Amino acid sequence: MSGTVHLVGAGPGAADLLTLRAARLLGEAQIVFHDALVAKEILALAAKATLIAVGKRSGRFSTAQHFINKQLLDAAKRYRIVVRLKGGDPMLFGRAHEEIAFLRKNSIKVEIVPGVTAALAASAELRVSLTRRGEARSVAFVTPRVGAGERPSRWIETALAADTVAIYMAAGDAETIARALIEAGKPARTPVAVVERASLPDVKTSFTTLGQLGALQAPALIFLGEVYREAAAAATAVGALRIPSQSA
Amino acid sequence: MSGTVHLVGAGPGAADLLTLRAARLLGEAQIVFHDALVAKEILALAAKATLIAVGKRSGRFSTAQHFINKQLLDAAKRYRIVVRLKGGDPMLFGRAHEEIAFLRKNSIKVEIVPGVTAALAASAELRVSLTRRGEARSVAFVTPRVGAGERPSRWIETALAADTVAIYMAAGDAETIARALIEAGKPARTPVAVVERASLPDVKTSFTTLGQLGALQAPALIFLGEVYREAAAAATAVGALRIPSQSA
Repeated sequence: MSGTVHLVGAGPGAADLLTLRAARLLGEAQIVFHDALVAKEILALAAKATLIAVGKRSGRFSTAQHFINKQLLDAAKRYRIVVRLKGGDPMLFGRAHEEIAFLRKNSIKVEIVPGVTAALAASAELRVSLTRRGEARSVAFVTPRVGAGERPSRWIETALAADTVAIYMAAGDAETIARALIEAGKPARTPVAVVERASLPDVKTSFTTLGQLGALQAPALIFLGEVYREAAAAATAVGALRIPSQSA
Repeated sequence: MSGTVHLVGAGPGAADLLTLRAARLLGEAQIVFHDALVAKEILALAAKATLIAVGKRSGRFSTAQHFINKQLLDAAKRYRIVVRLKGGDPMLFGRAHEEIAFLRKNSIKVEIVPGVTAALAASAELRVSLTRRGEARSVAFVTPRVGAGERPSRWIETALAADTVAIYMAAGDAETIARALIEAGKPARTPVAVVERASLPDVKTSFTTLGQLGALQAPALIFLGEVYREAAAAATAVGALRIPSQSA
């Protein structure tokens, strides 16, 4: 008899953006393997669990995936309720596939608890909807980040085709990303919104254009699209930056 | 002195996929305007609020948007905490833009509480991650639904460019959607996953190919992409359906 591994979304950062189900499972868990960036207040809910930090969002210094897999398998053989707590939602840039495939191959029961993904929390901070009736009906969630030896991502193609784009794990490469998109044909005057530390007390939102996007601090999300034009114009009306009108 | 209107994501359906923040706000609200499909257990959290049903997800028989806007404005003039409760997340196919723009124009404070969007809850049910390292790094959330007089959506273009696609509000038109995608160049053998009533007790998941996608019941989400190939093959190994291999 082995236990169940619950892959649980910890949400974007703020402790109260956790789901009720995630909070309950943390309280019941005997062992919790968590991403390094999960807030202390969230981990405190796992009152009777052994806490084990694995992985960092940036990919650097993270526990190797095969070692995390092995730890989850061993835990499922010893405990009834094992939680693997991941930032945001497990199924969107959360590396869930590798853990699910490994555990199921080893006949371990896996349940997923969805969470609030960073782009939605960031949109709440911006107060700008990703979609807009009659104007923005397609949204792309992409990342330019690829590992060594992986095939190149189609993120640019997807970003060009969508009305609104959310770029994950982009902070360190913001200028390179902007240059790549402009070279591929995205207008330099495309409105851009940037959200750093979405949902946290020190959240920072800013607006610019693709042509003027500079370096950013991690973790940040970059948004592109016409839906940001009004907010960008309002934010920059004070003079720092003028975004050309859509017909210009 | 007017109150604050909180646009709150009710999540995908299951009451315990609400966030802690949404649950707290419902408990504090004096008035709650909610989508018709929000679960009774969620509405029960709004113990001291007047409950007003507005809108249906399908778009039919819904309260006209301008009338909802007016109700929210009037409520904000009378009450300190007004909640506008929307299925899923407010910023993704939630019509939040119209309410935010109207309220801010009228100097009403607006706060957004993000929620778990249907595609993430459906992915949890499927146990298939939307992204996969080195294989699927771009995800499109689209809807083919456009209102009368609106410009055509670029949803097909976006769907063709993304590694994984989630199609919202698609159930009623599933066969038309499949035909349009195939005519635009998406292979008929593209693996498809369908999730009806994600997160609810009577959830139904199924797998097929784009070429064999038939009519569906609302509300359902349609997913396309290579990430569904293994699950589709496993589900259909019993003989009902054979999906050709990727190299075929």
